[in-house]
Amino acid sequence: MSTKYVYMFSEGNGKQKELLGGKGANLSEMTNLGMPVPQGFTVTTEACTRYYDDNSEIVPEIVDQIFANLKKLEEISGKEFGSTTNPLLLSVRSGARASMPGMMDTVLNLGLNDEVVEGFAKMTNNPRFAYDSYRRFIQMFADVVMEVPKSNFEKIIDEMKETKGITLDSDFTSEDLKEMIEKFKTYYKEQKGEDFPTVPRNQLLESIKAVFRSWNNPRAIYYRRMNDIPASWGTAVNVQMMVFGNMGDTSGSGVAFTRNPSTGEAKLYGEFLMNCQGEDVVAGIRTPEQIEKLAEVMPHAYEEFVEICHKLEQHYRDMQDMEFTIENGKLYMLQTRNGKRTAAAALQIAVDLVNEGMISKKEAVASIDAKSLDSVLHPTFDESALKLAKPIGSALPASPGAAYGKVVFTAEDAITLNEKGDNVILVRLETSPEDIEGMNAAKGILTVRGGMTSHAAVVARGMGTCCVSGCEAIVIDEEAKLFTLGGKTIKEGDYISLDGSTGNIYEGQIPTVEASISGNFGTIMKWTDEFRELNIRTNADTPRDAKQAADFGAEGIGLCRTEHMFFEADRIKAMREMIVAKTEEARRVALEKLLPMQRSDFEGLYETMEGKAVTIRYLDPPLHEFLPTEEKDIIEIAGELNITVQELKNVISSLHEFNPMMGHRGCRLAVSYPEIAEMQTRAVIEAAINVSVKHPEWNIVPEIMIPLVGEVKELAYVKSIVVKTADDIIAKSDIDLKYSVGTMIEIPRATITADEIAEEAEFFSFGTNDLTQMTFGFSRDDAAKFLDYYYQKSIYEQDPFARIDKNGVGKLVEMAVNLGRKTRPDIKLGICGEHGGDPSSIEFCHNIGLDYVSCSPFRVPIARLAAAQAAIKNPRNN
Amino acid sequence: MSTKYVYMFSEGNGKQKELLGGKGANLSEMTNLGMPVPQGFTVTTEACTRYYDDNSEIVPEIVDQIFANLKKLEEISGKEFGSTTNPLLLSVRSGARASMPGMMDTVLNLGLNDEVVEGFAKMTNNPRFAYDSYRRFIQMFADVVMEVPKSNFEKIIDEMKETKGITLDSDFTSEDLKEMIEKFKTYYKEQKGEDFPTVPRNQLLESIKAVFRSWNNPRAIYYRRMNDIPASWGTAVNVQMMVFGNMGDTSGSGVAFTRNPSTGEAKLYGEFLMNCQGEDVVAGIRTPEQIEKLAEVMPHAYEEFVEICHKLEQHYRDMQDMEFTIENGKLYMLQTRNGKRTAAAALQIAVDLVNEGMISKKEAVASIDAKSLDSVLHPTFDESALKLAKPIGSALPASPGAAYGKVVFTAEDAITLNEKGDNVILVRLETSPEDIEGMNAAKGILTVRGGMTSHAAVVARGMGTCCVSGCEAIVIDEEAKLFTLGGKTIKEGDYISLDGSTGNIYEGQIPTVEASISGNFGTIMKWTDEFRELNIRTNADTPRDAKQAADFGAEGIGLCRTEHMFFEADRIKAMREMIVAKTEEARRVALEKLLPMQRSDFEGLYETMEGKAVTIRYLDPPLHEFLPTEEKDIIEIAGELNITVQELKNVISSLHEFNPMMGHRGCRLAVSYPEIAEMQTRAVIEAAINVSVKHPEWNIVPEIMIPLVGEVKELAYVKSIVVKTADDIIAKSDIDLKYSVGTMIEIPRATITADEIAEEAEFFSFGTNDLTQMTFGFSRDDAAKFLDYYYQKSIYEQDPFARIDKNGVGKLVEMAVNLGRKTRPDIKLGICGEHGGDPSSIEFCHNIGLDYVSCSPFRVPIARLAAAQAAIKNPRNN
Repeated sequence: MSTKYVYMFSEGNGKQKELLGGKGANLSEMTNLGMPVPQGFTVTTEACTRYYDDNSEIVPEIVDQIFANLKKLEEISGKEFGSTTNPLLLSVRSGARASMPGMMDTVLNLGLNDEVVEGFAKMTNNPRFAYDSYRRFIQMFADVVMEVPKSNFEKIIDEMKETKGITLDSDFTSEDLKEMIEKFKTYYKEQKGEDFPTVPRNQLLESIKAVFRSWNNPRAIYYRRMNDIPASWGTAVNVQMMVFGNMGDTSGSGVAFTRNPSTGEAKLYGEFLMNCQGEDVVAGIRTPEQIEKLAEVMPHAYEEFVEICHKLEQHYRDMQDMEFTIENGKLYMLQTRNGKRTAAAALQIAVDLVNEGMISKKEAVASIDAKSLDSVLHPTFDESALKLAKPIGSALPASPGAAYGKVVFTAEDAITLNEKGDNVILVRLETSPEDIEGMNAAKGILTVRGGMTSHAAVVARGMGTCCVSGCEAIVIDEEAKLFTLGGKTIKEGDYISLDGSTGNIYEGQIPTVEASISGNFGTIMKWTDEFRELNIRTNADTPRDAKQAADFGAEGIGLCRTEHMFFEADRIKAMREMIVAKTEEARRVALEKLLPMQRSDFEGLYETMEGKAVTIRYLDPPLHEFLPTEEKDIIEIAGELNITVQELKNVISSLHEFNPMMGHRGCRLAVSYPEIAEMQTRAVIEAAINVSVKHPEWNIVPEIMIPLVGEVKELAYVKSIVVKTADDIIAKSDIDLKYSVGTMIEIPRATITADEIAEEAEFFSFGTNDLTQMTFGFSRDDAAKFLDYYYQKSIYEQDPFARIDKNGVGKLVEMAVNLGRKTRPDIKLGICGEHGGDPSSIEFCHNIGLDYVSCSPFRVPIARLAAAQAAIKNPRNN
Repeated sequence: MSTKYVYMFSEGNGKQKELLGGKGANLSEMTNLGMPVPQGFTVTTEACTRYYDDNSEIVPEIVDQIFANLKKLEEISGKEFGSTTNPLLLSVRSGARASMPGMMDTVLNLGLNDEVVEGFAKMTNNPRFAYDSYRRFIQMFADVVMEVPKSNFEKIIDEMKETKGITLDSDFTSEDLKEMIEKFKTYYKEQKGEDFPTVPRNQLLESIKAVFRSWNNPRAIYYRRMNDIPASWGTAVNVQMMVFGNMGDTSGSGVAFTRNPSTGEAKLYGEFLMNCQGEDVVAGIRTPEQIEKLAEVMPHAYEEFVEICHKLEQHYRDMQDMEFTIENGKLYMLQTRNGKRTAAAALQIAVDLVNEGMISKKEAVASIDAKSLDSVLHPTFDESALKLAKPIGSALPASPGAAYGKVVFTAEDAITLNEKGDNVILVRLETSPEDIEGMNAAKGILTVRGGMTSHAAVVARGMGTCCVSGCEAIVIDEEAKLFTLGGKTIKEGDYISLDGSTGNIYEGQIPTVEASISGNFGTIMKWTDEFRELNIRTNADTPRDAKQAADFGAEGIGLCRTEHMFFEADRIKAMREMIVAKTEEARRVALEKLLPMQRSDFEGLYETMEGKAVTIRYLDPPLHEFLPTEEKDIIEIAGELNITVQELKNVISSLHEFNPMMGHRGCRLAVSYPEIAEMQTRAVIEAAINVSVKHPEWNIVPEIMIPLVGEVKELAYVKSIVVKTADDIIAKSDIDLKYSVGTMIEIPRATITADEIAEEAEFFSFGTNDLTQMTFGFSRDDAAKFLDYYYQKSIYEQDPFARIDKNGVGKLVEMAVNLGRKTRPDIKLGICGEHGGDPSSIEFCHNIGLDYVSCSPFRVPIARLAAAQAAIKNPRNN
């Protein structure tokens, strides 16, 4: 039996979204519910994927099905496609499985040509309307199908207005419109070298193909990437008989939501315009009326519409977003779908629907887009102000939130200006750990280089500060203290505005709205805890970050990066002394200075976490990161360290690395200089003992994490240092302190030898940032340069640093999980890479059976929600 | 039943090398053959591993077994250990599974103390001999067991000689020796704070422990790494009754080989000394006599020895290396083993033994150390001159061979000086592709940075030029044109000598002996082809390299790196034009200039290979490698390119990468700029057509290899460009040219998604250099800095870039082999990383079922031999 590629609306149903797309399935569903839907048929998503498989052709088999169903539609409508006496006009609209509003193409009024339009004019007894429909069709078809921009036709209209002394479109007469149509056709021929197509069936097939093609236009690709929609889904195409809201004063079009999509208020919310087509409502040529007004203008239609709204919401058990048209007083439903909403509205609606008894808590939790929570946790731009702003550039949305401020180019300037009370935006080529204080002083951070997991991105997310990274289009002139972007020159002290949620960069100040966490947020968060099976921890290096995360519900620290503590002014000197030391003895002297500082850091963390788990990762970055790079700093620091400039330069040169990411770092440092691990162990254990003495009610069990292990013998060696040091201290104390030693799994070799590593490791924490880098062979700081080409060519659809690559990195992680559990069934498994805060990746972590995810503090609520959703979707067999 | 840790010689046999070590097994075997062996027992290798497992203690269970066997030995010898009347003295010697001459420790004359020596003097009726034995024992025990250096005792001896006006050791009287012993013991006590141990049983146990410990001394670790011996094997210890070659004029010691170990000549070869212990023969205090002389001195002993030699060679069916002692006219065999030999000797002996009917061709092929062939393919130092030279430093043996020459610091100077007829050694921080010509002009290359697979190493091996890389101890002063190493300052123009096979660096000129490939070499090579199942290809970029490899028996090119062709002076300009081009159009203009050059390169390769397989890898390195880095070059090249210096600097800065190894390179370039792949395809296909027209008898089938693929869609995209371009050209030609498209597997992600990649790839070539880097997370250029710590701590025993890491990288390779074959059963599988020339890695490749290995030209013979040996060891089930 051959595949069915075309379904009449009456043949489908609301569950067939995969095959018919969201719009098609809902049109079928409304048809089945007996609602007034202009009839038509849906060309399936499978037809779309075949189109791509068949070298962008619609094969005869499918063409035949299209025309067979067109025949049925002619019978239902009593009209005939291409008829000069009783013509059927069609709309051709996209409709993917997931709603992608405005991303793909639409053609309306299809089926007109010079002859048909005459018949249409007679049939409707409204020549002006008929010619207006025809010119709209030419414009739309030319634009969508033939890539002749619509705006060029608008120019022709403007010229005609001028010639004729007209200001409003509605002032054109039928004859004017006829003239306009001729001009349009002439222009079309000039542009395309051929006549405007007159055969309606060809118009239909070309339009269907154009919709298929539009699945792969750049904005659709971008939208899919942002919304996790796979390219393989394809779009369906809905071919529907036209109904006309522009037939006169008893006709109109509108859009409405069953509840307010901004606030969630339980009240119909929408707009309409009389005597116009749907596109005019959206285009904003005339100002639409509030939906309530329809009760006055067309009371019957309004009443029917309200009843349908109610039915639809009850039927779909969610807020609906609908389009309708009234043709000569008769209401038609053109579309319904679950409405997009702000995060605040989503929370409100979910809580309301539970209270109304319409949905369960589980459904409420499942209904909220986890990523969208960012917008209730961070400042956002004032929406009305944002509408007027045009970005001068855009880059990676590295840390959510919105901010405006004065541009500075150095961390020091950021601190100074902030102290004066100014809002500051820090603009850097890239940030380094030395910039931490300046980053903290800034309202927003903008970098030229670096991806979603660059230093700037990771630190900004930790701080909850907005950050846009990897804006390669920026050219910085550091001496002149200015940069250029999008043709604009921005000087130090000029205002810019950053949107870390979209990656947009604006000139000037756009006012922001502070984050506001409502009671609904708390309610939903409490509900998530009823469902989730993953524990949620946080990546935090300071008591402040840890506190923030704990307030958001973090159940422990999954990653404390100890090196971040070494960059503070009073500490880096001791760190540098250690680095330039030539003997173990000299290194020990310097480490002895670091010990009390590090110990008090850990005490702070234990105090804040009140007995919750704290995982401490040992020194990770290559040592050259702690040394100066600029001549003047080298001279100054050589002085501080009591060595000659040449000696310091020799050290710097000896530490130079071609590929620092794959260099002398992680546990390789502890293997080379075990005294570092010894000092860190002293700090961890002594701090735990000190705090345990003060708070015997807390059960502090430090988790010591050795980074960058690729071979079990590395871990065994470092662990032996840790255990010897720790056990000595514990034996001398009055406390029977427990601790555990585990490792990051972030080197591909660790995943394939995880059975061996689990002999030594009591826990694994997947460091999926580095694991992604090495599995792909991408440097995260360099990948931005070529990933754009990859997105354009659909080679990658997602940034693998933002969303875990299930097919590659994920397979290695799974392998490590299985191998690790084989050796040590009770091994604790978590993730502390950036993926720990990404909903799709969290679902993956749930599915492969991890114990916890750890993410930056501001992502903790997202992770709680995403973990609950994953558990609802795929309950584990406990 | 408890484990047996100690075997009397009469209990073991020659097959038990794993348990008894080579020496122990052969002592047993000789005992079984009825040969005159001083009896004793072997403490097994298992006892050694237990010693390490038991925190460096010998547990009572094993101690008991040792003393039980000592008892038996007392019975056999009729003497008593520690007796003051009839004392048994012992030698304690190491003996690992594989021979490690001189790497571990030995204690002789054990069992003496102040009382026993008196008895010994009476028993032998030779007080001088007894006291001399005692002082030797103190020296050796102190040195080996207690780490008091032997040389310090030599000082005491020298002082006594001076005091007494004596020049020869033999002039000391018994009384002198007694005095010396007292001085020794006093010195010992000063050093160790305790008396020299007097209890013979303790002396024995401590000596056994010392031998166990010596398994992990630095030179043993180094030797194991060089010779692929795992740390886990451990060493056995042989405890043997002493026989004395120093009992007078009818006593003596010697060493001999059944054939000449330098040339392979079938004639007894050895030395002996009358009235001395074995160590004196080796130490060179007196000049030993040629072995034939023994026929005159002790005709009976000589006759017996010759007969034993003959028997042993027949028995072991290989050339033997033996130690013997004559005590009062009676011959004792102390050791036999298969003798170490030079490569030339190995070839000669193998061919002779086959001709003599003693062994089969298969055994002959299996008998030769594949790695050793390097020394017949490259110049070596004159051995006698080398003995007198002391290295001033050493680093990685990156490309074999020996050379001396005048030091220069730039490629230009290398060329100039070479043109004048001077031998040149090029010394660089690291080399880059721009240095190629200078490297070619040099006799040897020495670099400060970079590992075994650095640019310098890879290129030098390709050229067959000797290279020592990664000598971090060198400090170069480029301005003064000098470097310092090992306390010496070497100026431009000074002579140094390099040994690329050992990594040693010498001051001055050491004369070299040219490589000489004998008929035996050809014979053995022919034999290898009868057994091997792997094809052997070569990595070659030029007709010259390809010719060299073909002469060595290469069956095709497995890797032609196309970028190497772009560095030549006349080409790099066009390459740079392409890089600075701002539009596709401008890039195409530059590529059009490169096309004819690249096409003629490929024609040259096809011509040289005469129809054999040629695999061409597309552009791989990041583009910044082609741009200048020094200010003066930037200015000059900006001029050549007709752009401003600032523009060129902007391009350079925009191409800067943090981790170039993981940057914009490989197929990522072709994805970004498909026109590059298009040009390369034109060149490959047009060249193949041109040569096919000239030589219709050759069946040229180009293999196009896309590098750095991590995701099948990357390959699919680039392949589509290749196929379209190639098919167009072929369609327009008169030739039905076939070609295939495959990929390097060098990214971890490629190995785990190899089933998907095989949908597109017709062949896989494992690029194990990069795969090793990314699997370990090591940069090969940076790893040298920390790998030493890893060797010291036995975390790694091998350089994973030299020998494939079977446990990690190997697992990924196997996974890819299995996944690839699942999708495409006839997929062609090879390796083109540096491991393709390493015997142990070649065995791995054979075992996992690859079709071919590809290596640098001078490694082709090694690969042929290693492949044959692998096939002999593990026949495939064909």
